[in-house]
Amino acid sequence: MKPFHYRKRIEFFETDAVGIVHFSNYFRIMEMAEHAWFRSLGTSVVHLGEDMHISWPRVKADCTFYGPLKFEDEVDVAVSMAEMRHKSMVFHHTLKRVSDGVVVAQGEIVVVCVEMTHEGMKSMPIPDFMRALIQDREDS
Amino acid sequence: MKPFHYRKRIEFFETDAVGIVHFSNYFRIMEMAEHAWFRSLGTSVVHLGEDMHISWPRVKADCTFYGPLKFEDEVDVAVSMAEMRHKSMVFHHTLKRVSDGVVVAQGEIVVVCVEMTHEGMKSMPIPDFMRALIQDREDS
Amino acid sequence: MKPFHYRKRIEFFETDAVGIVHFSNYFRIMEMAEHAWFRSLGTSVVHLGEDMHISWPRVKADCTFYGPLKFEDEVDVAVSMAEMRHKSMVFHHTLKRVSDGVVVAQGEIVVVCVEMTHEGMKSMPIPDFMRALIQDREDS
Amino acid sequence: MKPFHYRKRIEFFETDAVGIVHFSNYFRIMEMAEHAWFRSLGTSVVHLGEDMHISWPRVKADCTFYGPLKFEDEVDVAVSMAEMRHKSMVFHHTLKRVSDGVVVAQGEIVVVCVEMTHEGMKSMPIPDFMRALIQDREDS
Repeated sequence: MKPFHYRKRIEFFETDAVGIVHFSNYFRIMEMAEHAWFRSLGTSVVHLGEDMHISWPRVKADCTFYGPLKFEDEVDVAVSMAEMRHKSMVFHHTLKRVSDGVVVAQGEIVVVCVEMTHEGMKSMPIPDFMRALIQDREDS
Repeated sequence: MKPFHYRKRIEFFETDAVGIVHFSNYFRIMEMAEHAWFRSLGTSVVHLGEDMHISWPRVKADCTFYGPLKFEDEVDVAVSMAEMRHKSMVFHHTLKRVSDGVVVAQGEIVVVCVEMTHEGMKSMPIPDFMRALIQDREDS
Repeated sequence: MKPFHYRKRIEFFETDAVGIVHFSNYFRIMEMAEHAWFRSLGTSVVHLGEDMHISWPRVKADCTFYGPLKFEDEVDVAVSMAEMRHKSMVFHHTLKRVSDGVVVAQGEIVVVCVEMTHEGMKSMPIPDFMRALIQDREDS
Repeated sequence: MKPFHYRKRIEFFETDAVGIVHFSNYFRIMEMAEHAWFRSLGTSVVHLGEDMHISWPRVKADCTFYGPLKFEDEVDVAVSMAEMRHKSMVFHHTLKRVSDGVVVAQGEIVVVCVEMTHEGMKSMPIPDFMRALIQDREDS
């Protein structure tokens, strides 16, 4: 799939005592980018439909860190939905520092489609409306 | 009321690029101490009863910062339930660095008793079981 | 002073188990808005000058919470530098939910001007270049 | 190596709007456990020696999520230093919910030894004092 681009500025609360973005926040930045990808399709990672509430919890996440990000750096995240399975999707994320184009991290996050009920979450096949939204985006 | 003491060690992710605990985390530390206070009464800030779910959202919070906390510092929080009103409680928090006894911050947090329903949260008088738990603690 | 406006969308990691933005994150949102105010003046909350490093740690922060913010809500923060003292500034923040214009929180944060040296932080009078940047903004 | 055990209670600010611990916080919990492992050796992840400041930034992190953690759950982290290389160490983490012994996540974090100077961080071979501390722990 064509990558989707999300850009943000590093906030002070995202840094740690070494003076750089705490590694856990790279995962939050990848998630922010993925959620913006859902919005770019006209939906949300939390879909509250009339008859079904759908969400996409994470089942696997990894990240390799190549360089630091500092306060007020701008970072560009290229999000690719790399693989769509029966019940899950695999996202690839590449984080670049905007000022010099250096890739500072690459990550992969696997999310699974679940129906949310009062009893909890239950995995389900990716619904047709979601597949159609993604196909439309590819065709456009 | 007698102060309740909560102690924790500063974690790396709580620090920021100046090398000290980010000011927003003092509020999280005060909340951790308050939640431990609820547990010390034998209940929880989120009470899931048979016929009623009760919680205590914050309606006001302030903090004055006197000194920094650093990675691996131990901090002692003295929590006092300073005032119980019809529907709300006022907590006072004093944060001391354990190594030298210096007071690094003092804060006040006001929480209101709410019933949580499917429609949302609705404020309610503090229930008798809660008043009794607090009285028992005072008398002990 | 004329208010400066900062807008952001609520991210999923900012919510808590009650389904709304955790109260500590209102303080982070106010700080994000203040840091954008510094940038709008052409400077930064962390000024790394040739002969002096200046920063603005928080010495007091309070917030009154009137309503919740939820995932994907847009929030507008109106930041006013309400008072400039010899060594400190007082910021007032009003947070509005963009969808309906409802004020969800109001806060005040006091920051003090410090010189950062290898020995630590030392408070100092607000430097002339900072006063000039603020005056320029008022006059424009 | 023998696993080291770290236990903590889930705090409210660690949860998200789905009612469970946000996935990014599993990485913070693994880091907390690793930092406790360093302390158990009599040192710290940030070693401020007389002639050299050493730290251990993360270069790779992954986690597989098997189940949720909720507010006030206790979690036990078994940390194993699985591999010591010339300049880096690999930690394996297994997170169990204490109440029922269910493994909720497994992760791996690779950290690299760096010297921190005014110019920044530079990777270095793991120092002898560190190798000796680890050997002592194994022999005990």
